[in-house]
Amino acid sequence: QWMMLDWKPKRADMLMDPFGIGRIVQDGLVFRQNFSIRSYEIGADRTASIETLMNHLQETALNHVKSAGLLGDGFGSTPEMSKKNLIWVVTKMQVLVDRYPTWGDVVQVDTWVSSSGKNGMRRDWIIRDCGSGDILTRASSVWVMMNKLTRKLSKIPEEVRREIEPYFVNSDPVVEEDSRKLTKLDNETADFVHSGLSPRWSDLDINQHVNNVKYIGWILESAPLAMLESHELCAMTLEYRRECVRDSVLQSLTAVSGAGISNLVNSGIECQHLLRFEEGAEIVRGRTEWRPKKANYNGNADQHSAETA
Amino acid sequence: QWMMLDWKPKRADMLMDPFGIGRIVQDGLVFRQNFSIRSYEIGADRTASIETLMNHLQETALNHVKSAGLLGDGFGSTPEMSKKNLIWVVTKMQVLVDRYPTWGDVVQVDTWVSSSGKNGMRRDWIIRDCGSGDILTRASSVWVMMNKLTRKLSKIPEEVRREIEPYFVNSDPVVEEDSRKLTKLDNETADFVHSGLSPRWSDLDINQHVNNVKYIGWILESAPLAMLESHELCAMTLEYRRECVRDSVLQSLTAVSGAGISNLVNSGIECQHLLRFEEGAEIVRGRTEWRPKKANYNGNADQHSAETA
Repeated sequence: QWMMLDWKPKRADMLMDPFGIGRIVQDGLVFRQNFSIRSYEIGADRTASIETLMNHLQETALNHVKSAGLLGDGFGSTPEMSKKNLIWVVTKMQVLVDRYPTWGDVVQVDTWVSSSGKNGMRRDWIIRDCGSGDILTRASSVWVMMNKLTRKLSKIPEEVRREIEPYFVNSDPVVEEDSRKLTKLDNETADFVHSGLSPRWSDLDINQHVNNVKYIGWILESAPLAMLESHELCAMTLEYRRECVRDSVLQSLTAVSGAGISNLVNSGIECQHLLRFEEGAEIVRGRTEWRPKKANYNGNADQHSAETA
Repeated sequence: QWMMLDWKPKRADMLMDPFGIGRIVQDGLVFRQNFSIRSYEIGADRTASIETLMNHLQETALNHVKSAGLLGDGFGSTPEMSKKNLIWVVTKMQVLVDRYPTWGDVVQVDTWVSSSGKNGMRRDWIIRDCGSGDILTRASSVWVMMNKLTRKLSKIPEEVRREIEPYFVNSDPVVEEDSRKLTKLDNETADFVHSGLSPRWSDLDINQHVNNVKYIGWILESAPLAMLESHELCAMTLEYRRECVRDSVLQSLTAVSGAGISNLVNSGIECQHLLRFEEGAEIVRGRTEWRPKKANYNGNADQHSAETA
């Protein structure tokens, strides 16, 4: 249970990580890192964007592997994985956001891993507000191994299991598994389609592939603007099915539940999403839930971007 | 002269800013903040992208104003500016990059302001590698005031001058002013044109305007891929002429100097850029210089993005 991790951070505790690189706590099983939310990480609502939160999850996952001394030559692979050309591939990600932090807030991210089935690994995260200790976000993900040459999924080899198993925490997922099947959208069932999306040079990671965090921006490209303005994302389930490279051209599809946005200004909304290649193959299926925004940001709509530099 | 700021950072010194929020040094005239380069801030070359560096410049500028106690209700405006509906608008930015930091590097950003002509302010930055003390990047920018209601440029009112003048450093620009006129490109003179660019929801800042750092990504959208792969940006001059809002549709134009990219693999390249509305009005004019990349990144081209999460 993640309840064992329930505690309030203290300033003195934070001083133990002066360089902001994070460290192992909880008998070596939990990795913890603080992030100060920066001005360029907040969006139109003055709060951190969902991409920012996902970036912090990625960063702590990698630093966890690094500080456990398990970083091979890859970007998250252990030494035995590197020897065998194995890489981690995310297959599912669930995120619950209770509250988004704002510029200047300091958040504390805890992450740990567990086994998932016979050949998977689960990675969980909790993001807390350092000031109040409140939980802001919980996330749970499932990873499997892929041979990077054959692109086929692989069992976890015994040598790799011996490297990673000592780090496995025996706990339930921090987000209960959403086992509802994700709908496969098509042109008929989608309410909104945005075509012609393609990676910018700056979307590419060190392997000239698109980092999976970038997919979220594309998924939201087909979400209706009226909803993005009136609601904030509070839950997200993503299933990753294919990777996306430099020359890919993508389509983003969204279906909005219920009576349509115009009638839902004061209630929650559920959306189904599909990101696919223009030729049809699926990249990511998703479901998102949205709640009405608080009204307190409306007074600032006439300010000017050039103030930020 | 920025030489007065020439010194080597020490670990003990860094410990004085455990929360990574930065602080005032040099008799209150220089603001200093450290950044640990994160995995999601590096690009295809494993080094921080130019956007990442610009984000760090923005963040230190805002934190400088904040820690001087001069943050009004705007995003960088002083209290007197807020009263008079004045905002800062950047008109020129010059950046020189000697070396890009990589994931896990800690950089230290110093920033300070000076007067610029009768009604402008100059802001300079130096980014150093915390490990070696080497200067990685220098940047110099010019700012003027605009009335956010009338959108007209304004003189600096006496009350505002009294707020900010005590912070002015009497120094030469850290980057010598590039006084060569920037070419106005058109369809005839440009070698590459990328049309149909428009802001994503996540490109918008708190004012639903596009932050000026985002413009750089669009400018580079029309830079030829072969150059982005073989060369790295080492100098950039940007002149900001108009702002860009949510529904803008943009064109990015680039002209490459000399004999064309194919002949320039081992030498430097100069480019001219223009970012404009599709209907023609100019947003940003720019000039960039590029030097050949070091060869040591080539061995990693077959790795996989899903490793990052």
